[in-house]
Amino acid sequence: MSSTEQSPSPPLPNRSAEVRRDAIFDRWVLISPARARRPSDFKSHSPASSSASGNRNPKPSCAFCAGREGECAPEIFRVPPSSSADWKIRVIENLYPALRRDAEPPDPSDDLAAAGTGRCAVTGFGFHDVVIETPDHSVHLPDLSPEEVGEVLLAYKQRIFQLARLGSIKYVQVFKNYGASAGASMAHSHSQIMGLPLVPPLVSSRLDSMKKFYDMTGKCSLCEVQSEDILVCDTVHFFAIVPFAASYPFEVWIVPRDHTAHFHEIDHEKAVDLGGLLKLILQKLSKQLNDPPYNLMIQTAPFDLSTSCAPYTHWFLQILPHLNVIGGFEIGSGCFINPVFPEDAAKILREVDCSK
Amino acid sequence: MSSTEQSPSPPLPNRSAEVRRDAIFDRWVLISPARARRPSDFKSHSPASSSASGNRNPKPSCAFCAGREGECAPEIFRVPPSSSADWKIRVIENLYPALRRDAEPPDPSDDLAAAGTGRCAVTGFGFHDVVIETPDHSVHLPDLSPEEVGEVLLAYKQRIFQLARLGSIKYVQVFKNYGASAGASMAHSHSQIMGLPLVPPLVSSRLDSMKKFYDMTGKCSLCEVQSEDILVCDTVHFFAIVPFAASYPFEVWIVPRDHTAHFHEIDHEKAVDLGGLLKLILQKLSKQLNDPPYNLMIQTAPFDLSTSCAPYTHWFLQILPHLNVIGGFEIGSGCFINPVFPEDAAKILREVDCSK
Repeated sequence: MSSTEQSPSPPLPNRSAEVRRDAIFDRWVLISPARARRPSDFKSHSPASSSASGNRNPKPSCAFCAGREGECAPEIFRVPPSSSADWKIRVIENLYPALRRDAEPPDPSDDLAAAGTGRCAVTGFGFHDVVIETPDHSVHLPDLSPEEVGEVLLAYKQRIFQLARLGSIKYVQVFKNYGASAGASMAHSHSQIMGLPLVPPLVSSRLDSMKKFYDMTGKCSLCEVQSEDILVCDTVHFFAIVPFAASYPFEVWIVPRDHTAHFHEIDHEKAVDLGGLLKLILQKLSKQLNDPPYNLMIQTAPFDLSTSCAPYTHWFLQILPHLNVIGGFEIGSGCFINPVFPEDAAKILREVDCSK
Repeated sequence: MSSTEQSPSPPLPNRSAEVRRDAIFDRWVLISPARARRPSDFKSHSPASSSASGNRNPKPSCAFCAGREGECAPEIFRVPPSSSADWKIRVIENLYPALRRDAEPPDPSDDLAAAGTGRCAVTGFGFHDVVIETPDHSVHLPDLSPEEVGEVLLAYKQRIFQLARLGSIKYVQVFKNYGASAGASMAHSHSQIMGLPLVPPLVSSRLDSMKKFYDMTGKCSLCEVQSEDILVCDTVHFFAIVPFAASYPFEVWIVPRDHTAHFHEIDHEKAVDLGGLLKLILQKLSKQLNDPPYNLMIQTAPFDLSTSCAPYTHWFLQILPHLNVIGGFEIGSGCFINPVFPEDAAKILREVDCSK
């Protein structure tokens, strides 16, 4: 392929390495193009479809497929909510849960985060569920219609409300691992929901960082984040950006325009709108980057959020394609090295045409 | 192999999932044996020697090998410090540096960590060096003698002192990536040294967490960490443990017995002592876990450390074998899932006999 075909618009500028600070996670990233190929040459060396599909039968099938429901851990609910075999989405227990729903919840009077001395441990209480996003083994999330992706998002919402009502769960982490190297052990399209008896440290530090920005500016850092050079695309209710200090090449955040603390406040109209935008972003990443493995996370707020936190708390959806290896520098320092300037990644993704 | 051969001593106890807090990094880990095979069955599926060696020639060679020095980026120093071809260790510039030594250092009056609003970026100034640990392509770190490993550690020390004298560097991250999936792009045994113009967030939060422990107890958290059940082995000056709240299965920390803030305070005797212990730990991990890829990090203190921090600041060496994939849950929440109880991992590693 000629360089003209690669670059239909003027070439990207030459840039010098920068150290950038992310105001949401309060961390630093080294944006270092000297280590990279041209930004438009980034491709996944191990596309998820080849690594994750595994089964090469003409009609592959697994325990997540329609008709094999009996092989799974117990079902929590299905969509539509009938006993019909024609389900579109099933939310089930994880057969190998990292937390046990039958364990004793920690005493609500225990302030786990404040425990500071010696060995600190509690029973592994919590919920670990799986959302089967489609009954069809060969269908992936971006193959669904905007309405259908919206229904998956609404299934997350429904399960989060169930967990909120228990009182013993402090935070819910929704995530999707796509491709074996991103952590997926099943090729059938699914995501996971973990109900945690504590607020994870990264969530606390994210809220602390957003509070710091608010205290200095009187504004929400995510309401302020959008600008033309990092915008990928947008809809009525959401915009998608490559964040200014992205830790991963081609990292994308989808942010609601409305200042809202919790993902599970989403309504049907916004879920379908988000479904369409998420579908488009996943299609763009797949087309541009050769179907890369990725992680998708919903970054939301703890259930118990004091009203004083509301002005700076804003949920978003984070998508991390796997294009480079995380090594000892990143693990040791918490600083990441991103070989693609976020403005360049945004421009490339803006220009990917998924209509053909 | 029979289960008796696998378990020469009484079998490991059955355990229920726990949520444990690490007092050094102030983070939570889910210790979740339900997801795992038996702890003694953990093996790397992609041993580093097969993935990293690449070159299948009978006498593989690369630019890091003796005789090909001219193909490398400029040398900083060699050991022994002569112009002789018979070098044992070379410290060179990284050909693809993530930071540029020729960029303008940030203004020392800029408090980068305090910058909180809008887009925050500085030039990518810093040092990114490589330590070639041996002239021989087929020799790996644990193949060296304790004295030779000690010389590698003293080469780190020498380079850290050079960077400290510049005044523009705030923190030095020493790390080693072994195996392609742990981030190594060269199979020839090497490690890396990054001189950073800022204190990384993970270092700041580690020191904050150790301060919290000190404020509550009057003691250093690492001086207090050793206990029999998590001990792997020890020497005159160091002990090796699987930390109580290890984030990774078979994670090992090597901790100096003396309460010392900075790695680069190490002397020759202690470097050789540490060299022997590091060699043994790497041999045990390789033998038990099928030559796993790993990251090794020196967790030390910033150069400018106020005397008030001295009572709770204690350097250590962290080794993370790669046995499981980090997915969206870990990235999103900062909580890790460890399928092997640290006490079980310590017991297994204690019993690995590397004398035969």
